[in-house]
Amino acid sequence: MATAQTLKGFRDFLPPVMAIRNQVISTFRQVFESYGFSELQTPTLEYADVLLGKYGEEAEKLMYLFKDRGNRDVGLKYDLTVPLARVMAQYPDIPKPFKRYQIQPVFRADNTQKGRYREIYQCDFDIVGTESPIADAEIPAIISDCLTNLKFSDFTIRINSRQILFDIIIKANIPSNLSLTVLQSVDKLDKKSTDEVSEELMQKGLSKIQVLDLFSYLKSAEPDTNLSEIIKLSEALGTKHLKFDPTLVRGLDYYTGAIYETVVKEPKIGSVSGGGRYDHLIENLGGPNLPAVGSTIGLDRIVDVITELKLHSENTNSTKALVTIFSPNLVSQSLNLSVNLRSLGINVELFPDPNIKLDKQLKYASQKNTPYVVIVGPEEIAKHAVILKNMSTGQQVEVSPDKLASQLLG
Amino acid sequence: MATAQTLKGFRDFLPPVMAIRNQVISTFRQVFESYGFSELQTPTLEYADVLLGKYGEEAEKLMYLFKDRGNRDVGLKYDLTVPLARVMAQYPDIPKPFKRYQIQPVFRADNTQKGRYREIYQCDFDIVGTESPIADAEIPAIISDCLTNLKFSDFTIRINSRQILFDIIIKANIPSNLSLTVLQSVDKLDKKSTDEVSEELMQKGLSKIQVLDLFSYLKSAEPDTNLSEIIKLSEALGTKHLKFDPTLVRGLDYYTGAIYETVVKEPKIGSVSGGGRYDHLIENLGGPNLPAVGSTIGLDRIVDVITELKLHSENTNSTKALVTIFSPNLVSQSLNLSVNLRSLGINVELFPDPNIKLDKQLKYASQKNTPYVVIVGPEEIAKHAVILKNMSTGQQVEVSPDKLASQLLG
Repeated sequence: MATAQTLKGFRDFLPPVMAIRNQVISTFRQVFESYGFSELQTPTLEYADVLLGKYGEEAEKLMYLFKDRGNRDVGLKYDLTVPLARVMAQYPDIPKPFKRYQIQPVFRADNTQKGRYREIYQCDFDIVGTESPIADAEIPAIISDCLTNLKFSDFTIRINSRQILFDIIIKANIPSNLSLTVLQSVDKLDKKSTDEVSEELMQKGLSKIQVLDLFSYLKSAEPDTNLSEIIKLSEALGTKHLKFDPTLVRGLDYYTGAIYETVVKEPKIGSVSGGGRYDHLIENLGGPNLPAVGSTIGLDRIVDVITELKLHSENTNSTKALVTIFSPNLVSQSLNLSVNLRSLGINVELFPDPNIKLDKQLKYASQKNTPYVVIVGPEEIAKHAVILKNMSTGQQVEVSPDKLASQLLG
Repeated sequence: MATAQTLKGFRDFLPPVMAIRNQVISTFRQVFESYGFSELQTPTLEYADVLLGKYGEEAEKLMYLFKDRGNRDVGLKYDLTVPLARVMAQYPDIPKPFKRYQIQPVFRADNTQKGRYREIYQCDFDIVGTESPIADAEIPAIISDCLTNLKFSDFTIRINSRQILFDIIIKANIPSNLSLTVLQSVDKLDKKSTDEVSEELMQKGLSKIQVLDLFSYLKSAEPDTNLSEIIKLSEALGTKHLKFDPTLVRGLDYYTGAIYETVVKEPKIGSVSGGGRYDHLIENLGGPNLPAVGSTIGLDRIVDVITELKLHSENTNSTKALVTIFSPNLVSQSLNLSVNLRSLGINVELFPDPNIKLDKQLKYASQKNTPYVVIVGPEEIAKHAVILKNMSTGQQVEVSPDKLASQLLG
């Protein structure tokens, strides 16, 4: 292997990192399924014409497109929304509302200097086929449950509605052809000062009075009937830290109703989830005419937060104990002990080689962050006991084999 | 979307199928982790020169190779062993023995007419860095636990050793340059008759006496010291249905010691797992010189068996109940009930649209195979009760809301 290296922009997930990712993914799944969502997986590769003409030119420059061995034009999937639209078109018998979640990698040949990866795991959950505000309300409820179950405390789920933004645009007498570009500037209000955004808006052709009106309407804006209903329902579903924010825009122009974005206070990492209602997108992507609402949660960013704030379980190693082997003639004692512990539902690793010295076996457990080590030496066997060593405190206790399981579980 | 279709040779996994796949995958994970294995994930794409020159020309014809946007030669991964070799070379500090499992798709532009798919999920588990027979013994133990936990009863784990086969070749006076091709014929003894295989061997240049000696030695073969030790240890680890079979060869020529293959009696589907010891492969693939033993389990085939024999949980839908909404003015009663049940750990779907009639809501639950439906109508509210309908029996009972959870869990 001339180049034993990971492809540029791609990542290996070694066990310690993978364990944290799996904690997050299993929390997501559990929450999604608690609301009746079920999993969909679509292929890594799609026909190129399923992908092309959907996201605009800039996106297409980032797509991995090539010809396969049968000379078909194919591409790696770019997001999880276009495959969802294809699935809705291809399987009209799927019962609706269709509540699906999907956790799979997508591929973007993005600039790695910006710290971006080219294979990103997206976690999307969407409800397709209903305009009901109850569906809108479940989206932030699910995000709130996911983050709460992952022990996040300092988060805010910002909520707004495209309708409210468009009403303000009209009330401020801003011509409709400028509405999207004006909203793009408004979207910067959480990062830039009011003066900077005013300046930008005037450069885009707004008068001073239009800008002042715009800011004043944004300041006094209240949720409309639909959004009030969504907020009320979502809070009844248990959503925490939901906050109406009329300056929330979300970059994507396909949203048609409620929009959401979740930010964490620490570390400063931007949003960890974003979504909204997109009633025309599935049709625009070539699918059937079906309203939809949903969100994506950023797995990578959430794993970063969890790692930085140390919110993950202390023991990322799912192995509870390493059962060492004292010497080649004492293999069966250790082996039988490992079988017994395993039959009680305890994950134990049997050190496989009796010819490796005990101190090296202990070092191995320490390198792997295994919480406990069990030692079964000749003295212990004579006393019908085993030694249980807590690897974080260094404490060693002698216990009877039948008490070992309760010690490990306790 | 001119072509709303899945790329040829690729598959969408819709929720009912995905649920069965997830049952299998979570059983695998649980068993792997119970033996101290941890998960590794490697990228979908690798540098082409990591992939090329490793598997032979035939394999390379099936690889998805292309140039990326940076003009790098890249390829989709073809198996999980080459990435493992790369990882072992790239991260020399990984504690050894390294017990890793990996469940990811691999890509092969194979002939779809043979019923083959081009994106296949492989499940590999391997122990790298030890020659100890305890490691060899854990492999069939894990397969046995996986299949037993999935409720398979009629399986056989065939075990043999390459050393035993090579000893027989020598005893039968077969020249060493013919040994691999002779073993390829021996491998067919489970499908072809002895006469057919004899004929084939003579065409390959063996004399009648060599063939007779070969068959006679195969018939009388016994496990050697190493294999006896592995079998004894594996049975002590709880392996079921392990059977020494001197005619087991396994096609791949990189095995150096014990080899295994698992077959199920019904349905006739071939092997569901295969593996063995491969002490030189990691080095030959460009990695460091590390002995290894491991196996792959065929997720697709196991899902096929489970589906055909109906071994999966009856309810593939993880949702326990659909909480219907009787009418627009009774939303909050149903919503609160769904929140309560969810807080007790019960997966419940709240039907999102109060404007859809109750019979349509029931039909939706039936289409999705949801086991129970909860109805909260005005009469029930007056009586402080709810109706619980069992969707498979059609039976309806009136229960008090605080007894609902225990009914659903019971």
